[in-house]
Amino acid sequence: MAAETQTPPICFGIIGCADIARKVSRAISLAPNAVISAVASRSIEKASLFAKANKFPPEAKIYGSYEALLDDPDIDAVYLPLPTSLHVKWAVVVAQKKKHLLMEKPVALNVSEFDVIAKACEENGVQFMDGTMWVHNLRTAKMREFLSDSERFGQLRAMHSCFSFAGDADFLKNDIRVKPDLDGLGALGDAGWYCVRSILWANDYELPKTVVALHGPVLNEAGVVLSCGASLHWDDGRLATFFCSFLSNLTMDITAIGTKGTLNLHDFIIPFQDKEASFIVNSKCFFNELVTSWVPIPSEHTVTTDIPQEVCMVREFSRLVGDVKNGSKPESKWPIISRKTQLILDTVKMSIEKGFVPIEIKS
Amino acid sequence: MAAETQTPPICFGIIGCADIARKVSRAISLAPNAVISAVASRSIEKASLFAKANKFPPEAKIYGSYEALLDDPDIDAVYLPLPTSLHVKWAVVVAQKKKHLLMEKPVALNVSEFDVIAKACEENGVQFMDGTMWVHNLRTAKMREFLSDSERFGQLRAMHSCFSFAGDADFLKNDIRVKPDLDGLGALGDAGWYCVRSILWANDYELPKTVVALHGPVLNEAGVVLSCGASLHWDDGRLATFFCSFLSNLTMDITAIGTKGTLNLHDFIIPFQDKEASFIVNSKCFFNELVTSWVPIPSEHTVTTDIPQEVCMVREFSRLVGDVKNGSKPESKWPIISRKTQLILDTVKMSIEKGFVPIEIKS
Repeated sequence: MAAETQTPPICFGIIGCADIARKVSRAISLAPNAVISAVASRSIEKASLFAKANKFPPEAKIYGSYEALLDDPDIDAVYLPLPTSLHVKWAVVVAQKKKHLLMEKPVALNVSEFDVIAKACEENGVQFMDGTMWVHNLRTAKMREFLSDSERFGQLRAMHSCFSFAGDADFLKNDIRVKPDLDGLGALGDAGWYCVRSILWANDYELPKTVVALHGPVLNEAGVVLSCGASLHWDDGRLATFFCSFLSNLTMDITAIGTKGTLNLHDFIIPFQDKEASFIVNSKCFFNELVTSWVPIPSEHTVTTDIPQEVCMVREFSRLVGDVKNGSKPESKWPIISRKTQLILDTVKMSIEKGFVPIEIKS
Repeated sequence: MAAETQTPPICFGIIGCADIARKVSRAISLAPNAVISAVASRSIEKASLFAKANKFPPEAKIYGSYEALLDDPDIDAVYLPLPTSLHVKWAVVVAQKKKHLLMEKPVALNVSEFDVIAKACEENGVQFMDGTMWVHNLRTAKMREFLSDSERFGQLRAMHSCFSFAGDADFLKNDIRVKPDLDGLGALGDAGWYCVRSILWANDYELPKTVVALHGPVLNEAGVVLSCGASLHWDDGRLATFFCSFLSNLTMDITAIGTKGTLNLHDFIIPFQDKEASFIVNSKCFFNELVTSWVPIPSEHTVTTDIPQEVCMVREFSRLVGDVKNGSKPESKWPIISRKTQLILDTVKMSIEKGFVPIEIKS
């Protein structure tokens, strides 16, 4: 333990000044085992403004090119929030430069691209993790305890997940997430990523056997998905459905139904409040004698979350990077989970393209 | 108004001593405009025991045959909780005997059967209503206000509804709802009825254009559905999904997502508590500047429900019966809604039987 406390913090370089990088750079500052060492943009002015606006430490370096940052020997790890179409190119360079990689989701335009990224990380011995924050929330561990409890929850049977938000006219016209050459998976890659991850999470990351897109997805003129859904099926009869959209009000629901219990929450990606997060547990609830009310009533469990989920993510990633620096192998769990998520997105897209036919998942 | 207060209460006869009849007979007792006049079972002993166990008034008549009750000129209205396969036979006799009809759901084994019932009611000038209680809850009217609010909710875009409960070994072997010759629609007709009704309700009872069953329904050995789901599609891109099951923990969710708001509740069929019922309203919620929490947080609206929903149902039905006795025509809204619900159930079943193909709804 003494050795661990002596490990210096992991030095992060940030490549690209996307909106989401504001939150993650704050998280890097707040994590006890990480520091911001540099930021790069194709425009040095933009990088400089970003560093100022986000109160980067004065010693943080400002680069006018991604390459320059990647050549900096002081950088341990890179946070990469670039548009998805640029992931494979830059992620491979990051890995080749022996930098560990924390990358925004969706991780790639398709699984083949992601495999190139994962291979580069593996060959260069660097840690990979995607930027799905909610799985690092303390609440998520508490929800996992419930789902794993054979007495309170039993076996998972069905699940529904939903993430939608109403993009305004500007978003629907100009955001990178509606552009085929930038984030070509649209709402499926952005909002759907979270739904699919939540379904995998609840299923202990067991891939479904079959995926079927729901009829009636909404595409924009360029063919990018603005709204869609799918059902996922496992051999033992387990079922999951999800719905993701840029066209309807902000909603982020999980309902996971087991043989003995049900989990509900309405803020699984971004918790309602900063300092606490809740979920609803229904365990073997039934009705009173005349079936006019429930016995017992489902209960709300609240978890104190002094450390924001994005800080938990950076802390965990940095811990793993520290382990690698101390001689451990990179943790393979994270790229495996990213790949499974991407694989399901690909399959949903294929099912849409083929006319909503069931597609078997080959893992 | 003076005339109305002088209208004598509607006299109910109950045909069949199903469990659900306990709750409805209590509701008839509690409704200000209804009284229990008689109960009939094929066994007079069973009818007598039922009357005693449910504290029927001493003047309530006990009949050992359905026909005898239906010949009683004092009876205005009949509550019919028989197995679905018997509905068409007895409902037609009820109507021919000029009794108004409050009937349990599902209303029939299929729409053709229901059309026979509806026609008999129409030809005999009697009021029809099905026994879906939750639509009469005071909360439901409050939720309707929210869904109708173009500023707070906007236009409905997507909806998910779920009703499941875990039938025990005895239920799954012996309950009438798993028997092909009694309630042949199984979980679809029982639990799915509520999901479909909630979807129609949220869509102002506009039928979808297309219905597609989800893959992977679970059937028992006799071919009765124990678990299934479907997606429903409207021409303007609106989407609804539902899941119903006898095989997973008690869950009854509605999520209705509009362009500006979202409605959530977890007890739409049977409210958690007797005296109050709640729902969650999210209207134009979004995130704080750094996207770490919501602004504002969705709010819970609680409605005081001193009158149980089943009493509201009996009261409304009796009010309509009173109107008919005073010369009005029967309210056609209720059989129309029942028919639409049944039509969608039929269509889901057909989609399952045809291999999960989309089926167009012909209204």
